[in-house]
Amino acid sequence: MSGLDLKWSGSEKKVARRAFDLAFDAAFAKLMAEFKSRADAVAEPADLWEMERYLRRQRRELEELFDFRYSQLPLVFARLIREEYLDERHLAGLSDAKLEIVRSYLSLPKG
Amino acid sequence: MSGLDLKWSGSEKKVARRAFDLAFDAAFAKLMAEFKSRADAVAEPADLWEMERYLRRQRRELEELFDFRYSQLPLVFARLIREEYLDERHLAGLSDAKLEIVRSYLSLPKG
Repeated sequence: MSGLDLKWSGSEKKVARRAFDLAFDAAFAKLMAEFKSRADAVAEPADLWEMERYLRRQRRELEELFDFRYSQLPLVFARLIREEYLDERHLAGLSDAKLEIVRSYLSLPKG
Repeated sequence: MSGLDLKWSGSEKKVARRAFDLAFDAAFAKLMAEFKSRADAVAEPADLWEMERYLRRQRRELEELFDFRYSQLPLVFARLIREEYLDERHLAGLSDAKLEIVRSYLSLPKG
């Protein structure tokens, strides 16, 4: 099970880009809402430094998750579906081989 | 001009602690107001990552500025007065020698 050797057609690349951007927008909207709520609650110096650590963790997680290399995309899409940033229907238009890889990742235990 | 070899009496230590804490509260209140205003304006991913860098810079500056070692306090107090986190009258009770060191730092050109 690997997406390393798959070929991506022009229309598949468009589907992938759209799905990826959609998921990024969803992830960012969630982070934004959480940030605003945490920012409202900041009251002490320790809260501010915790906010710095929180933003660093979130940035690193997003950087790791949103990896737009075609070789990684099936795994990335599976993770994005699992995190509920993406619905599988947004991948309609990808080849069956790619969708099967996504689904096989989704069938693995979490962790 | 150095505070390295000064002796601090018990009452001077109390004055120093009170002035230091007062200045810290003032600095934190200023940072807090700026943070809340910046947090309200965050709208894009780049704003969030800039917020992370902003908090890191602010934390490092405060850590560097608020150095409660008696050997450093005259310089620290001079900086806090210059930054308008402290008024010289809050140092009343320190020996003339210490106040002179503070004033001599204040008389130096900025930078």
